[in-house]
Amino acid sequence: MIFSRKGSGLQQGIGTLVVVGVGLIGGSFSLALKRAGRVGHVIGVDRSRENLQRALELGVIDVACDDLAQAARGADMVLLATPVGQMATQLATLAPVLAATTIVSDVGSTKCDVVAMLRRHLPGHLARCVPAHPIAGSELTGAAAAQYGLYDGRNVVLAPLPETDAAVCERVAGLWQACGARVHCMGAHEHDAVFAAVSHLPHLLAFSYVGMVARRADAARCFDFAATGFRDFTRIAGSSAEMWRDIALANREALLAELADYRAALDSLSVQLEAGDGDALLDAFDTARAARNAWHQRFMRQG
Amino acid sequence: MIFSRKGSGLQQGIGTLVVVGVGLIGGSFSLALKRAGRVGHVIGVDRSRENLQRALELGVIDVACDDLAQAARGADMVLLATPVGQMATQLATLAPVLAATTIVSDVGSTKCDVVAMLRRHLPGHLARCVPAHPIAGSELTGAAAAQYGLYDGRNVVLAPLPETDAAVCERVAGLWQACGARVHCMGAHEHDAVFAAVSHLPHLLAFSYVGMVARRADAARCFDFAATGFRDFTRIAGSSAEMWRDIALANREALLAELADYRAALDSLSVQLEAGDGDALLDAFDTARAARNAWHQRFMRQG
Repeated sequence: MIFSRKGSGLQQGIGTLVVVGVGLIGGSFSLALKRAGRVGHVIGVDRSRENLQRALELGVIDVACDDLAQAARGADMVLLATPVGQMATQLATLAPVLAATTIVSDVGSTKCDVVAMLRRHLPGHLARCVPAHPIAGSELTGAAAAQYGLYDGRNVVLAPLPETDAAVCERVAGLWQACGARVHCMGAHEHDAVFAAVSHLPHLLAFSYVGMVARRADAARCFDFAATGFRDFTRIAGSSAEMWRDIALANREALLAELADYRAALDSLSVQLEAGDGDALLDAFDTARAARNAWHQRFMRQG
Repeated sequence: MIFSRKGSGLQQGIGTLVVVGVGLIGGSFSLALKRAGRVGHVIGVDRSRENLQRALELGVIDVACDDLAQAARGADMVLLATPVGQMATQLATLAPVLAATTIVSDVGSTKCDVVAMLRRHLPGHLARCVPAHPIAGSELTGAAAAQYGLYDGRNVVLAPLPETDAAVCERVAGLWQACGARVHCMGAHEHDAVFAAVSHLPHLLAFSYVGMVARRADAARCFDFAATGFRDFTRIAGSSAEMWRDIALANREALLAELADYRAALDSLSVQLEAGDGDALLDAFDTARAARNAWHQRFMRQG
C-alpha cells in the first residue's frame, strides 16, 4: 500500500524527537521536519562529540546528548539512524526507560533483523515500533551532510510488525510525507527480498567482479583499459565494506537465494556461449535491454 | 608499448582515405584527421544513402559512394568502421581491387576474429593490415554523431599481426595520435583477454542480472524500488543486443574463461555468506573497494 496524503494523522507532529546517529539520514529527517513545522524539539545522540557540536552549530538538532537513556526518557519518538550493528545495544538501553507512548523507528537497509531485535529487546512495546527504510543513501556522512531536501520525492518503506498500531504507523508515514517522501508499506520479509534483488545483490556482484579483476596477474594492464562502462558498473563497489558486510549478514537468507538464481543464470549463459547459440544470446540480451530501458524511462520521470 | 609522439612517420598523412561505415567512430576519425590536416580526400561508403548524404552535408566526408570496390581502388587507406559482422564480406570485396600499398585497418571491439578474417581474405596483404580498437563507444550512431574531439585523450589499441610492416603500424599510430588519442600496441590475443575482463564480461553480467530481475514474479515491485545504484550498475544492459551478441560470439573463448572465474568467485562468496563469515566478507569487500577507488582516482586524472 501507499499512504494517501489525506490520512487522518498526517497533520500531527512530534513534540520531542530523539535522533540517534546524527548523520546524513537522521540529520536530514530532523531538518525536513523542522522546515515542515512538524517537530518541537530535536535531541541528537551520537558517539562523536565533535559531530554533535557540528549538528548544533548547523541547527540540525536543538540539544546534544551523549547518553541515550537520558535523552530517551519522555521522548515522543526515538529514531535509530546508526549502522544496524549498533542497534541491539541501543534497544537494550532503551528498554527500561521508554515511556509507554514513545514511538520507536529506525532507518536500516534490512528489516527482518531489526524486527527480530525489536522482538527481543522491546517485546512489550511492539505496538509503537515502526521499522523503516528511506531509500536515500549517499557516500556522504556526518551531520554536515544533512540537508533539507534529501527526501523530496524519494521512497521510504515502512515495515510495521503485525503488532504495530495502525495509527502509530500512519503517524510515522505522515512525518516522512512531511519530509517530501513517498511512503510505502510492506512486510519485513517482502522488503528484504525486494532489496536483496535490486540493491544488495548488485553490490555483492560488483564487489566480486572488481575483486576478481584486482587479483589477475595482468590487473594493472586491465585497469589501464577500463573505461566508462566499467566505471558505472563498479561504482557501488566503492561503497563502505563494513556497511555491506553488515547488510550481507543481516539479509543472508534472501541474498543466498538471489545468488543461487544468479549463478544459475550465468550457467545458462555459459551454455549458450559455449554452444555459440547467437539466437539465444540475442534474445536474452534484448529482453534485458528492453526491461532496463523501460525501467530507466520511468525512473527518470519520477525525478 | 605506447607509441612515442616523436616517431618518424608521425607527420605523414593519408592522401585518399576510404571510411566504410560513416558513423560515430569512422566519421569522427575523418573529422579529426581533417582538422589535423592529415588527410587529403575522404570517401565515405555506407549502406544508407541517407546517412551518406548527411555525412556530405556535415563535411564528414568529401565524396559519397555506395560501391566499396570502386571506392577502394587506388585508396591509400581503407578503414572498416561497420559492425564486425559485415567485415568478412567487405574484405572479400576488397581482395581483388586493393592496390599493393593500401593500408587496411578497422575499429572492431574484438581483434582475434578480425585477424582471422584478414588471414582468410587478404593473405598476401598482411604487411599493410593494422587491426585497431579505439576505446570511445557511445550510444550515438550515424554520421550526425561524428565529432571532432571524440578521440581526445582516449585510448586506441593497435593489434598488428606478426606480418604487419612496422612502418605501416607506426603510420597508423601517427594518424590516431593526430586525432588526439593515446595509442597502445598489443597482440590480438592479449587485447581480447583484457577487454573480455574489463568490458565484455561486465556487459554480460549486467544483461544477465537485469534479465533475472525482469523474470521475477514480483518484477514490477522490484523495479519500483530500484534506485541510483541499480541505475549505474545496469546502464550497460541498455546497450545494443545485436552488437553484444556479436562481441560475445567473437570473443567466446576469452569470455568463457572470464565467466568460469567469475562463477568461481560467486561460489566462494556464497560459501562465506552461508557460513556467516563476516571477516572474510569484510576482507573481500574492502579489497574490492580499495582497488575500485584507486582505479577511479587514476581514471579521473586522465580526464
